[in-house]
Amino acid sequence: MTLQLARRMASIKHSEIREILKVTQQPDIISFAGGLPAPELFPVEAIDRVQHLVLQEAGTQALQYTTTEGFAPLRSWIAKRMNSRLGTSFDLDNVLITHGSQQGLDLSGKVFLDPEDVVLCESPTYLAAISAFKAYGCRFIEIPTDADGMDMVVLENTLKSTDNVKLIYVIPTFQNPTGKTWNLQKRQQLAQLASRYNVAVIEDNPYGELRFEGQDLPSVKSFDKTGQVLCTGSFSKIFCPGFRIGWIAGDKELIRKYVLIKQGTDLQCNTVAQMVIAKYLELYNIDDHILKIVALYKKRRDIALQTIQEHFPKNVHYTHPEGGLFTWVELPENVCARDILDLALQSKIAFVPGGSFSRIMKDKIPLG
Amino acid sequence: MTLQLARRMASIKHSEIREILKVTQQPDIISFAGGLPAPELFPVEAIDRVQHLVLQEAGTQALQYTTTEGFAPLRSWIAKRMNSRLGTSFDLDNVLITHGSQQGLDLSGKVFLDPEDVVLCESPTYLAAISAFKAYGCRFIEIPTDADGMDMVVLENTLKSTDNVKLIYVIPTFQNPTGKTWNLQKRQQLAQLASRYNVAVIEDNPYGELRFEGQDLPSVKSFDKTGQVLCTGSFSKIFCPGFRIGWIAGDKELIRKYVLIKQGTDLQCNTVAQMVIAKYLELYNIDDHILKIVALYKKRRDIALQTIQEHFPKNVHYTHPEGGLFTWVELPENVCARDILDLALQSKIAFVPGGSFSRIMKDKIPLG
Repeated sequence: MTLQLARRMASIKHSEIREILKVTQQPDIISFAGGLPAPELFPVEAIDRVQHLVLQEAGTQALQYTTTEGFAPLRSWIAKRMNSRLGTSFDLDNVLITHGSQQGLDLSGKVFLDPEDVVLCESPTYLAAISAFKAYGCRFIEIPTDADGMDMVVLENTLKSTDNVKLIYVIPTFQNPTGKTWNLQKRQQLAQLASRYNVAVIEDNPYGELRFEGQDLPSVKSFDKTGQVLCTGSFSKIFCPGFRIGWIAGDKELIRKYVLIKQGTDLQCNTVAQMVIAKYLELYNIDDHILKIVALYKKRRDIALQTIQEHFPKNVHYTHPEGGLFTWVELPENVCARDILDLALQSKIAFVPGGSFSRIMKDKIPLG
Repeated sequence: MTLQLARRMASIKHSEIREILKVTQQPDIISFAGGLPAPELFPVEAIDRVQHLVLQEAGTQALQYTTTEGFAPLRSWIAKRMNSRLGTSFDLDNVLITHGSQQGLDLSGKVFLDPEDVVLCESPTYLAAISAFKAYGCRFIEIPTDADGMDMVVLENTLKSTDNVKLIYVIPTFQNPTGKTWNLQKRQQLAQLASRYNVAVIEDNPYGELRFEGQDLPSVKSFDKTGQVLCTGSFSKIFCPGFRIGWIAGDKELIRKYVLIKQGTDLQCNTVAQMVIAKYLELYNIDDHILKIVALYKKRRDIALQTIQEHFPKNVHYTHPEGGLFTWVELPENVCARDILDLALQSKIAFVPGGSFSRIMKDKIPLG
């Protein structure tokens, strides 16, 4: 006899990226797959020192249970950081610490989604966001997205004509997987449309601090007058991912709902990790550290784009990301990215075929 | 305009225990509420040393992403420990590392439960398990439970007469909140009934290592011939809760489903915490550490029971736990525990009224 699982399990499949990442664990593979931060930049010595200080100064507190909301000094730092960089006006009660920004997506699904509800997202979009929301039985509609962001006419028409749209999920800065960044006008329009059609927006921003060139832009949230927009963030790309510390921030009443749902999900995040990050932020200048990350990633991007330009056929198109970790390459219609991946793997080179990032592309066109 | 939330949110309320725990954060309160481990026993110095070693020896690995399944040496240790103490026959592929055992419950809800499915549980049961499962829209049926475990006749009749029973949730050893322990026969019967009626069992065991007296008993899982039983466990009560490291173990094919669902939920658990615990287990004898915990908790239990016996009215009944953290006090029918809590709080003493632990009791009888 086989146990009967929840209906959602029928649609939960192995992540293609996770499978490719397994291949990349072979030491001789050159991997362009997966957004793994550069480990040589992890501040190992500083963390070692800070961990020791935290345990010396407040060891029993650091190893004990804490509140679901998270460590207050860390929440305050996040609120101030967002206010100064993203144009928000948050204090600590707007911020819930999550187990990486991925948990912010999972909790958003739990707070907002019933089966058959609709999530609107960019095309293509972050694969693991699809996994997170899909577990709540939702449908997805991908909105065409160009170099400046979603097509606002299609977005509004979709909002008008579709019942039960509960979430609009976007990564407006250095998007995963395309590396594209929304312009100012589209950020403003998204906030207005979300308010007009009373839909929540999840503004995912794990890469925003990693700008190589160009001007920082205010967040979608900064244009939100009605509390529709929730922002997720993470220490994974500016500090290290191993601690699994991220956050979700938004309207206080809504964040209280997230706190309630997180209680039953996992009680709270790792206390030590939260206190170590807070202490690091107190003793070190994280901006200096981010400068080092930006310098390395910019160099890598420059080499990547230069190599593409020199060696790829001219009918291959690619994005020019102003920051973050990802570049998106578009192949001619008659070329299948999965076939090229097979060839590349023979030369010990890995990348993620683009079809993985799109529900529509997965079903309809080969890959690109 | 107010955003429309998922239907589940209507039934998600503030946890009464969490509210009482807030009161207990006042420094002059004597608290019998909440299962907070004794912080004076946290191995702060050992953890400090081990953290340093882990960062020195494998800093970049410890701060990087890892697999969803978790750190292999830790999973192997858990499998061996369970085999030697609980009569299981696991290896590392039977074990998924979770964010505390609480996440094992949440993931179980996600893997098994559709709205209106039924969860059978002890009466009373662990409050946060109700919260975890309730988020998936299930109903609960409480099975009468005496000093030796669930009433097996009622359990079988309920299984026979109820559609869509997906989970049986039990804490057979030093139960939360009663401190009771199931006898051998009922453990065996539960495994048989689960197999006969093809229902999954979640055997939650966060306190099993903390035995003050009497003989260890084999787990329900050890009697499971058909792979129906999943076991959750945790380092919170034998090491420290701040790291949020627990596990769920069971049939390999089923654990693969949990791994898939955890990928979309939060990618993985904290890498550093997993490696620190594994290194601690390699360098220190955790059994020596557990002996210290058991000695202190036994002393506390003895004082509690002796005080109850000396000072409580004779028509108040209470359990005699052979281990763990909890004792359950039953008041006469006409006395309301919440009224007594109000009086106790005036004398700066806190406890959790029993009605919190039961959906039925909450609705029907005052409290007890």
